[in-house]
Amino acid sequence: MALSEFDLIARYFRPLTQGRAEALNLLDDAAVITPPAGRQLVVTTDALVAGRHFLADGEPVGLAHKALGVNLSDLAAMGAEVYGYTLALAAPKPLSEDWLAGFAAGLAEVQAAHGIFLLGGDTVGTEGPLTLSVTAMGWVPQGAALTRGGARAGDALYLSGTVGDAALGLLVAQDGRTLAGAAGDAFLKDRYERPQPRTTLGPRLVGRATACLDVSDGLAADVGHIAEVSDLGAEIDAANLPLSEAVRTALEADPGLLSRIVTGGDDYELAFCLPDTAQSASEVEKLAAETGVGLTRIGTMTAPPESGPRVRVLGPGGAALDLQTGGFTHF
Amino acid sequence: MALSEFDLIARYFRPLTQGRAEALNLLDDAAVITPPAGRQLVVTTDALVAGRHFLADGEPVGLAHKALGVNLSDLAAMGAEVYGYTLALAAPKPLSEDWLAGFAAGLAEVQAAHGIFLLGGDTVGTEGPLTLSVTAMGWVPQGAALTRGGARAGDALYLSGTVGDAALGLLVAQDGRTLAGAAGDAFLKDRYERPQPRTTLGPRLVGRATACLDVSDGLAADVGHIAEVSDLGAEIDAANLPLSEAVRTALEADPGLLSRIVTGGDDYELAFCLPDTAQSASEVEKLAAETGVGLTRIGTMTAPPESGPRVRVLGPGGAALDLQTGGFTHF
Repeated sequence: MALSEFDLIARYFRPLTQGRAEALNLLDDAAVITPPAGRQLVVTTDALVAGRHFLADGEPVGLAHKALGVNLSDLAAMGAEVYGYTLALAAPKPLSEDWLAGFAAGLAEVQAAHGIFLLGGDTVGTEGPLTLSVTAMGWVPQGAALTRGGARAGDALYLSGTVGDAALGLLVAQDGRTLAGAAGDAFLKDRYERPQPRTTLGPRLVGRATACLDVSDGLAADVGHIAEVSDLGAEIDAANLPLSEAVRTALEADPGLLSRIVTGGDDYELAFCLPDTAQSASEVEKLAAETGVGLTRIGTMTAPPESGPRVRVLGPGGAALDLQTGGFTHF
Repeated sequence: MALSEFDLIARYFRPLTQGRAEALNLLDDAAVITPPAGRQLVVTTDALVAGRHFLADGEPVGLAHKALGVNLSDLAAMGAEVYGYTLALAAPKPLSEDWLAGFAAGLAEVQAAHGIFLLGGDTVGTEGPLTLSVTAMGWVPQGAALTRGGARAGDALYLSGTVGDAALGLLVAQDGRTLAGAAGDAFLKDRYERPQPRTTLGPRLVGRATACLDVSDGLAADVGHIAEVSDLGAEIDAANLPLSEAVRTALEADPGLLSRIVTGGDDYELAFCLPDTAQSASEVEKLAAETGVGLTRIGTMTAPPESGPRVRVLGPGGAALDLQTGGFTHF
């Protein structure tokens, strides 16, 4: 009982356009969008392959969360208000109706949570693993997009939410590790599988943050990206890292997990810089209260180091974390 | 000698941004685009999988032409001026530098031919076949986008270029058929492998055509799409179909190829409707001269038929082409 492409679009994808005129009911060659006055368009494309970027046997609802989440996170990192997306789905055939229904339901969940809709796309067959490519679009006030390149030495470095959940969640989901009890492990796994892009926070950082990105490669690497593009260094205080209860539990049992927490990816939190002033600190406090997202100062941007890595994670007494061993060493 | 993602971007993809500010040197989370005043954004996403949408052993220059060409063709069909694109590349590893260099050179060729540039994208590994997803963007004057839904009964139906080249080119390329001599076969194969999207013509149809699309599924099916969305029928005169010399040669040897010419896809020509007036006819003539693209009236939109297919291809004495057999039959 193979679905025709027409049926597949009508049944699963057209409802995701929410009747928005831009999508032309998915009946035409392209979507047509009217840009809001005074705004710039922010566009990002991310691809995910089964077995690499998500578990090959992952359930389709979570897959929808991941595919949209990582793209919306990129928009949030630029300070954009999220708007809509196109989807290219290369799927092994036959796709079961159950799978499609679950995937569409997952897309609908993310759409509702973030106020976006489907603009268009393409569904093709493949002999290979399921491959998803999402292009997400948003709007930012003219000239106000946040980038990685505007940080200055002395800026305070902040992180939203908590760090390391997804990295430990991957250990739970993929390697079957037990790290933080049943409830804690379920929390960690969920954080890996269903990113919560900070789409409300990102636009609120416009006009405030000097640099911003989302943590996808790992905190140390991503702060390194800000440091590189801004030509700076960065010091992160290990003691100030915001950790979930589940990560604290896991870390108490195995302190060596710290390096994984600092280097593991997929948290999709925002790391951003602000001038180190009392006014900034008070604005951040207000922003955290208004958005309901924890915002923690985790370190400081510095002049570029004369040698060694641009980003140093500092522990007790100023010892630097060895990202290979997970231990602290004095230079 | 595996290339790092950084090297790969720096060497092959960053040059394709042509230094445009929008792409932020591919250093950031997303591209930032300033919409021109009074324009709407037109967005399309098409995915291609090796072995399905292009030959699995196809050379990379041609692949770049195909991947961009089919997307630019969608923009042209909406009357949009083409602007830029993002690219998601899921590739079996290791990708050879030769392959990458060829692919990037192909992208550069298409960019130069159509005045577009790379906005951003993503490169990931896969165990499966090479999969390319392109999201292309263009601009159209506010409210002026061409769609499939505006045709009226009595409108003249036009086609750009020639029909059937790609369908026969696929027979040459994939099945090794000899159809039109060495030069003719090479022409047909090239038409299959390197679509020439009608990016100059499309925007010139704005304000003129009542409906438009690009011929990707096959002439009969695609005219059927206009007929469906406009709730009409269509009659195509077989004798008026614009055929290349190579197709004429092939057809003389095997008249049964006519049905394949009418139903085969991948020509990426524009089919469009205009009011059937002397003024329209003279405008089309002028447009053909100015754009250098042949424009041929191939039929007429009709009221929706009471029964039978919406699109009929009529031959000698009004006999209808049987798309299964390739023969003409009287009802």
